[in-house]
Amino acid sequence: MSDIKKVVLAYSGGLDTSIILRWLQETYQCEVVTFTADLGQGEELEPARAKAQQMGIKEIYIEDLREEFVRDYVFPMFRANTVYEGEYLLGTSIARPLIAKRLVEIANETGADAISHGATGKGNDQVRFELGAYALKPGIQVIAPWREWDLLSREKLMTYAKNNDIPVDFAKQGTKSPYSMDANLLHISYEGGILENPWTEAEEEMWRWSVSPEQAPEQPTYIELTYEKGDIVAIDGERLKPHEVLSKLNKLGGENGIGRLDLVENRYVGMKSRGCYETPGGTIMLKAHRAIESITLDREVAHLKDELMPKYAEIIYNGYWWSPERQMMQQMIDESQKVVNGVVRLKLYKGNVIVAGRQSPDSLFDESIATFEDDAGAYDQKDAAGFIKLNALRLRIAANKGRGQL
Amino acid sequence: MSDIKKVVLAYSGGLDTSIILRWLQETYQCEVVTFTADLGQGEELEPARAKAQQMGIKEIYIEDLREEFVRDYVFPMFRANTVYEGEYLLGTSIARPLIAKRLVEIANETGADAISHGATGKGNDQVRFELGAYALKPGIQVIAPWREWDLLSREKLMTYAKNNDIPVDFAKQGTKSPYSMDANLLHISYEGGILENPWTEAEEEMWRWSVSPEQAPEQPTYIELTYEKGDIVAIDGERLKPHEVLSKLNKLGGENGIGRLDLVENRYVGMKSRGCYETPGGTIMLKAHRAIESITLDREVAHLKDELMPKYAEIIYNGYWWSPERQMMQQMIDESQKVVNGVVRLKLYKGNVIVAGRQSPDSLFDESIATFEDDAGAYDQKDAAGFIKLNALRLRIAANKGRGQL
Amino acid sequence: MSDIKKVVLAYSGGLDTSIILRWLQETYQCEVVTFTADLGQGEELEPARAKAQQMGIKEIYIEDLREEFVRDYVFPMFRANTVYEGEYLLGTSIARPLIAKRLVEIANETGADAISHGATGKGNDQVRFELGAYALKPGIQVIAPWREWDLLSREKLMTYAKNNDIPVDFAKQGTKSPYSMDANLLHISYEGGILENPWTEAEEEMWRWSVSPEQAPEQPTYIELTYEKGDIVAIDGERLKPHEVLSKLNKLGGENGIGRLDLVENRYVGMKSRGCYETPGGTIMLKAHRAIESITLDREVAHLKDELMPKYAEIIYNGYWWSPERQMMQQMIDESQKVVNGVVRLKLYKGNVIVAGRQSPDSLFDESIATFEDDAGAYDQKDAAGFIKLNALRLRIAANKGRGQL
Amino acid sequence: MSDIKKVVLAYSGGLDTSIILRWLQETYQCEVVTFTADLGQGEELEPARAKAQQMGIKEIYIEDLREEFVRDYVFPMFRANTVYEGEYLLGTSIARPLIAKRLVEIANETGADAISHGATGKGNDQVRFELGAYALKPGIQVIAPWREWDLLSREKLMTYAKNNDIPVDFAKQGTKSPYSMDANLLHISYEGGILENPWTEAEEEMWRWSVSPEQAPEQPTYIELTYEKGDIVAIDGERLKPHEVLSKLNKLGGENGIGRLDLVENRYVGMKSRGCYETPGGTIMLKAHRAIESITLDREVAHLKDELMPKYAEIIYNGYWWSPERQMMQQMIDESQKVVNGVVRLKLYKGNVIVAGRQSPDSLFDESIATFEDDAGAYDQKDAAGFIKLNALRLRIAANKGRGQL
Repeated sequence: MSDIKKVVLAYSGGLDTSIILRWLQETYQCEVVTFTADLGQGEELEPARAKAQQMGIKEIYIEDLREEFVRDYVFPMFRANTVYEGEYLLGTSIARPLIAKRLVEIANETGADAISHGATGKGNDQVRFELGAYALKPGIQVIAPWREWDLLSREKLMTYAKNNDIPVDFAKQGTKSPYSMDANLLHISYEGGILENPWTEAEEEMWRWSVSPEQAPEQPTYIELTYEKGDIVAIDGERLKPHEVLSKLNKLGGENGIGRLDLVENRYVGMKSRGCYETPGGTIMLKAHRAIESITLDREVAHLKDELMPKYAEIIYNGYWWSPERQMMQQMIDESQKVVNGVVRLKLYKGNVIVAGRQSPDSLFDESIATFEDDAGAYDQKDAAGFIKLNALRLRIAANKGRGQL
Repeated sequence: MSDIKKVVLAYSGGLDTSIILRWLQETYQCEVVTFTADLGQGEELEPARAKAQQMGIKEIYIEDLREEFVRDYVFPMFRANTVYEGEYLLGTSIARPLIAKRLVEIANETGADAISHGATGKGNDQVRFELGAYALKPGIQVIAPWREWDLLSREKLMTYAKNNDIPVDFAKQGTKSPYSMDANLLHISYEGGILENPWTEAEEEMWRWSVSPEQAPEQPTYIELTYEKGDIVAIDGERLKPHEVLSKLNKLGGENGIGRLDLVENRYVGMKSRGCYETPGGTIMLKAHRAIESITLDREVAHLKDELMPKYAEIIYNGYWWSPERQMMQQMIDESQKVVNGVVRLKLYKGNVIVAGRQSPDSLFDESIATFEDDAGAYDQKDAAGFIKLNALRLRIAANKGRGQL
Repeated sequence: MSDIKKVVLAYSGGLDTSIILRWLQETYQCEVVTFTADLGQGEELEPARAKAQQMGIKEIYIEDLREEFVRDYVFPMFRANTVYEGEYLLGTSIARPLIAKRLVEIANETGADAISHGATGKGNDQVRFELGAYALKPGIQVIAPWREWDLLSREKLMTYAKNNDIPVDFAKQGTKSPYSMDANLLHISYEGGILENPWTEAEEEMWRWSVSPEQAPEQPTYIELTYEKGDIVAIDGERLKPHEVLSKLNKLGGENGIGRLDLVENRYVGMKSRGCYETPGGTIMLKAHRAIESITLDREVAHLKDELMPKYAEIIYNGYWWSPERQMMQQMIDESQKVVNGVVRLKLYKGNVIVAGRQSPDSLFDESIATFEDDAGAYDQKDAAGFIKLNALRLRIAANKGRGQL
Repeated sequence: MSDIKKVVLAYSGGLDTSIILRWLQETYQCEVVTFTADLGQGEELEPARAKAQQMGIKEIYIEDLREEFVRDYVFPMFRANTVYEGEYLLGTSIARPLIAKRLVEIANETGADAISHGATGKGNDQVRFELGAYALKPGIQVIAPWREWDLLSREKLMTYAKNNDIPVDFAKQGTKSPYSMDANLLHISYEGGILENPWTEAEEEMWRWSVSPEQAPEQPTYIELTYEKGDIVAIDGERLKPHEVLSKLNKLGGENGIGRLDLVENRYVGMKSRGCYETPGGTIMLKAHRAIESITLDREVAHLKDELMPKYAEIIYNGYWWSPERQMMQQMIDESQKVVNGVVRLKLYKGNVIVAGRQSPDSLFDESIATFEDDAGAYDQKDAAGFIKLNALRLRIAANKGRGQL
């Protein structure tokens, strides 16, 4: 056992992190500082305070980080149309760097020499927490109880709770979700249980934020999203803060059956894993952002962004938000967004996000050139002959030299 | 006027290419060979034969290319999850290389020294036809009437038709679509008309293959797609040829309101253009292919494919199907698909394509490792500590040297 | 002939651009403004003034752009370790954007409606000049005489000169280089003549700036280059302006037989072309920049730069300096260079540039960790076991499922 | 201690691996199989046999793998012009996969359940050995003594040797190189000692295979290399096997002072490390391969290879030779090399490798088009106008909309 004096714990107030809290006290004989954040997961935080006090904690941090979360993490990520493996909107991945940052900052404030979290040794979250912490405070110690203790079954955990006076809400336990879940303003994720078989369809009752497309209203909902520098700043003309934007889009999306996703992904630690995700607002934002970019971005800028996006997504998924390579790419992405201003009109209907219109003071769409009608000389069609001839030149030379393509 | 003796014309039998036919005869005083292909556009071809005969054509090629089209062009492209600019499924782009190839082959067979097509000087299709033709037969001459003549308004065209005894189906003209359209087994595209304003929503009556999500059935349709080497070979257990697969998926998708797309894209010739696309079967195939790859592909192979996809899509969109770089990439893509075998179960419902299950004899999903339950030692969670420590090392050294990330 | 009133000509004072000057006057009946720049090509500019005056030019621009050239074009490019097709240091490509910019600025100042240049229709330079001009002033007209006139042989040019009272320095003509050359502070290029056969070795007498390695001194020269933010600011401790740095390195390199290059490159217009290049200072800078980056850049930042470099080089080679995609990439590159500070010690000897040492206040090289000796616990070798195990996991799962690698 | 019965040891016959041999016998009480390979490191192997016998080994594998090494590892890698971090030719990296493969094959033959190697816990080689072994035989156990034992100083090692009757050649010890070295047909590497300070220049006496440029002959050496499908098959017309090619080029290069390299690289385990490398033949091959590709490869194929090369190099450097992503890339690379045939003429002189000529039956260099002289209509310069106009279109539209580039 290394000589830890004080540890900052990412504490949800739930049973698992309460057990961790006690286990840290017992095992390391150290003081514990709890940190509980509101990232929009939709749970009250005050019970966490009471529970921490009850377990003898003196330094308790409870914070509403929703605005910072969306403004400094979610929005920058969406500027890149970021999708991991073609589908996943990175809802869990993007929350971890903020938590890592706050853990380190609180360690600095309270003079703690370690941090601790409740992520298991099989998942990506341990990596994301710890890479962030090490990058921000290289001398920090990290305690990951799931990699250290032997409480590896639910039975052992319950016994430990009982033996250590940890309050268990047995009523709640009985109705406990069979899934391993994570939630924040961007999404809820579900793993485990019957999902461990990729051939099994998710049950309707699993989903929490959205109705099914079947149960969504028969009438579509139209909305208008206003963009400034790649971020949504207003919905239907009403100016909103970043987290208010996402909250409202979650509500609109959820009501219209939008944003459910069921996939098998490749974890950074080397295994495939099945996950279901509910990302109503994010699903709307991705579609809308591409629409506003489609009229405002230069072609080559857009293509360069598309080519780099998979790497950017991988960097975030793998936990390297706090890295020089992510910051370097962000610089480039943000640079591209200066002109991404305008309005996107969307139709939401039973799971569908349909672009119904886009306009922008920075539009590069030039009707006078694109028209099928007479363009009054704006574009000289004869130019195309030379364009094609020179682009074909290398192919013709090759064919002449006997390099058939057939 | 260069000295053309015989020209092979990509002939649809419609008014525009009939005018071109006559214009070629008049202008170049040359023989014309017509080539009309069934690529699944859903029009009868025999009227084209009659019309060509009526205009004095002796060499008339009418061919059903549907199987070749899907097998050798559409399917290879879908192996790469190909999407241009994040959304467009390349329905028009992928048909052009086959037409270019047949034009050249027919020129070889008939001793023609030129080919001709009806694509305008503003679009991508002229590029795709001509790059293909030059790559396959570098000495071929290309006549692109829209870049040469002065019949640049509909009025002038109609006058020319009248003056040159070209049969105009005035009944049909009256009901003519206000859109510039292109169709084949993969999609229908719509451009022009009111679509030239990107803020205007497409009219419901424009769409031809699909019902709207609103009008789709209240009951979902479940289907199972069987993959071999990345291609669908059976639907619900029934073995089908490639074009039969796509036909059936078009029907299933169209009935369920799937595959409509409305976007602004960047043309190779340098302008932005608004297009609407209807790709029912392709939309299903893209989703399903990602699902079967998600359990069968190695992570790094999948990520490499994702990083290269935008370039591959650009190559096809820009008309470089018949190029060494496309063939080189195809080699790599096809190599990756050897293990992409198995079954995907989908739920189709009112515009949604939802993955309900995937299984494969080549699955890399390992339940015994991924499980949240006891894994009997299959994975040693302690390994993660070293994994994270070494991945963090460069970040820690940098932070120690004062390179803060904040 | 379009109605041109005044044209700004990139004028060297040589025979060819003098003929162009007169041809513009004759053909377009327009006023000509001459623009002659010192980019370090090593020729006096005043004779160009005299000659222009003699031909009746009233607005004559003669400018020393050496500092701007190196500071704003050469140095930014070298921050990316830019090399086209693995070898070419882009000496010609990087000068064109500056000339294009000044042509446009002078057109604005003088109210000219066109620009003109002496680049042929086969090369890259026409593209670079014109893309730049169009990007900076989209309504500008461009006159490229080599694409318009019929003076396509040297004989016709000489006759035209004679018939139009253009002074020909016949003495100079007799000794004229058989090569098509271009020179600026970064390099001299040679094309044409016997170089048109790629099997023929360049003649020793062709090279102008450097001695051959054989003729270089028997004693090596050691120098120290000081970097700030990726740029060289001092040589052997002496602080110099950007163009002074490059001048001095050219001298040092040239004396030591450094920087000759003989290659076949792929032009943007579609053909292969043989070129010889003499880039003494640039060759030194490339080697030194990599050396200073090797101790100051983070690994992933360095690798990302390496992956993007070929595209960045292509952008510059093809003439897209004045494009949003280049500016976007530059942003990222420059961001990475904040920490590229320090000193590189080099040994120059008979064509070789050898790194003899590098040091930096921003070095990430950590001797205490890298050492083969006892590191006092700075690095725990046991961490490597977990690192390898998890990195191997996907490979092991695949092998277990029968996916042999052999 | 896991229950190991038999282990295959990568055994050099030197002191360190002899100590490992004994340590394995003592610690695991298991049988040891020794495997000693000739990869061209230039040491006799029979002493290793004698020493192994002396230490009681019954199963001794001694193999000449030079041909396989160059044919199946070195040559395929050079087809991609592979360079790590702009400079390193991967001499050590490329040998590890072959050793890993043989260790696994011998384990299969001898029924061994483990393999062992002498690489330390700080370096890349442990990763390369072990990733290879796990990929090829996922259930194999790996014993890495340097990560397990406490013999972490030279003193402790010597004591262990003395106490365990391991023959130490004290004469040799006294003259032992102060560097950690690795050698095979492709290179020798040097690390440690005074090299641990990146500001210190390497000593002349360190280098073993090459003379310094200063000591190289005053007369250049010309050679001609014949390529087939991207590999060298003959030198000066003499047909040679792959390892004979590399041997001969090492001799030629070494005599002419070619192939020394001094750099700081980024290890996969997260630290920077200083290394000096001597790669005479490889340095020649890289230059020559680019030269033959320059006339035979299509432009876009060449550029695609250049864009992917850094990733391919990283894959090999990091130890993922035996991975599906490397095999997938190799497929593409090899496909591109079908046309890489011809002859390259080189001048070797005092550290310089100078291309003096290249020719090929598959050359795409077309003198009739590239010429500065009259091309008899092979290329229509007017085509360039349209080419430039359309390529500029997006830039002009943007500028017209107020997106200045200045």
